[in-house]
Amino acid sequence: MLREDERLDYLLAEDMKIIQSPSVFAFSLDAVLLANFVYVPIQKGNLVDLCTGNGVIPLLLSKRTKGKMIGVEIQEKIYDMAKRSVQYNKLEEQIEIIHGDIKDMPAHLGYSKFDVVTCNPPYFPTPNEEEMNKNEHFAIARHEIYCTLEDVIRVSSQLLKQGGKAAFVHRPERLLDIVTFMRQYRLEPKRLRFVYPKQGKEANTILIEGTKDGNKGLKILPPLFVYEQNGEYTSELKHILYGE
Amino acid sequence: MLREDERLDYLLAEDMKIIQSPSVFAFSLDAVLLANFVYVPIQKGNLVDLCTGNGVIPLLLSKRTKGKMIGVEIQEKIYDMAKRSVQYNKLEEQIEIIHGDIKDMPAHLGYSKFDVVTCNPPYFPTPNEEEMNKNEHFAIARHEIYCTLEDVIRVSSQLLKQGGKAAFVHRPERLLDIVTFMRQYRLEPKRLRFVYPKQGKEANTILIEGTKDGNKGLKILPPLFVYEQNGEYTSELKHILYGE
Repeated sequence: MLREDERLDYLLAEDMKIIQSPSVFAFSLDAVLLANFVYVPIQKGNLVDLCTGNGVIPLLLSKRTKGKMIGVEIQEKIYDMAKRSVQYNKLEEQIEIIHGDIKDMPAHLGYSKFDVVTCNPPYFPTPNEEEMNKNEHFAIARHEIYCTLEDVIRVSSQLLKQGGKAAFVHRPERLLDIVTFMRQYRLEPKRLRFVYPKQGKEANTILIEGTKDGNKGLKILPPLFVYEQNGEYTSELKHILYGE
Repeated sequence: MLREDERLDYLLAEDMKIIQSPSVFAFSLDAVLLANFVYVPIQKGNLVDLCTGNGVIPLLLSKRTKGKMIGVEIQEKIYDMAKRSVQYNKLEEQIEIIHGDIKDMPAHLGYSKFDVVTCNPPYFPTPNEEEMNKNEHFAIARHEIYCTLEDVIRVSSQLLKQGGKAAFVHRPERLLDIVTFMRQYRLEPKRLRFVYPKQGKEANTILIEGTKDGNKGLKILPPLFVYEQNGEYTSELKHILYGE
């Protein structure tokens, strides 16, 4: 079931496994943090993960919700990894992986049908030709080639019911663009958490959640530190990563 | 030199004194944090503190800059306290206190003349009549009666030179309004710091600085914790408050 240079990695200690490939796609800490951060309904509901990559977010969320999940991935090779990971973990009943462009999803899946949308989108502006040639898979996952930040936020809003939640992970440099687009597309920012590599350092990641047509009132959650001064993961990170 | 129920309090351990009154105005921790947070030129420059109250911010900044400072206060009684505090500390050469409405200051002091503008503005929407009657001085200092958040940001931008810095302290609930107004009035947010009462709690204060006509690129500074879990000030707070 593994192709080429793919490998089967553990997810959440030894609870689940996920297919990754050093030359095509491997999930990042950011996806794990987003899956931990987002509000999810426990018993039921409809969730979508845009730019799902190898499906790490729906796989992780299957531990937190009994709701149905859809993951959308534009790159066929990576979509195929996600699909096989879902099968490997026997989660086909709960998680569907779709090969497609997120911009087509409102027409394809329906407007205002979902309770939760998550997305760990490409962070960086369009790459130059050299980067694109070096590794197209990485370039597409990391750069705004097939979807811009505005696409992600507009599509999220279109998919969500009134009162539904959208949660994103991104870089602090884009915070102002994110909140501007969120308000423009009726996703009122409600919870914001900053991730710092360690005490005394600037934040390098943001986690933000908004409610479709929600009331104003933003909460700044406690800071999340990744490493202790000695370079070990903090106890909160160990808990998120390994359930310890 | 003290009137009615005024008292002379220490500022920065025993370096300076400041006139306060429990029934009229006493400075808050927020003002001290803003005076610590803001960028200031060391050797020279022109600085304005809007809504200066009893002048705590220019008094504190006199330890960090040799620039000329102006404090603007609309309430005559509080303006008078600020003026006498400046005299008491023999800082009349460096600090001028003006009795006036911040909205008149661009016409009065000149457009695009200043290097730095600070403001610890009223945080809350307009109060009801009962609150207004209970203590008018507090009501004006705390509520958007004579100046709104938009006034503060518009006036700051009008006063600043290109490249000048505006720094504000406010509540997290208003973060999105602040950044929206800042961008609207050409103050690009550059530095943002969240203040948390202690580890594990939500932020209750934000410190934000923008540059007039600055480039995009927001930094999220390390979090500032006020108290240790045992209720003592953190070492960073002690350093800010007492120079320890």
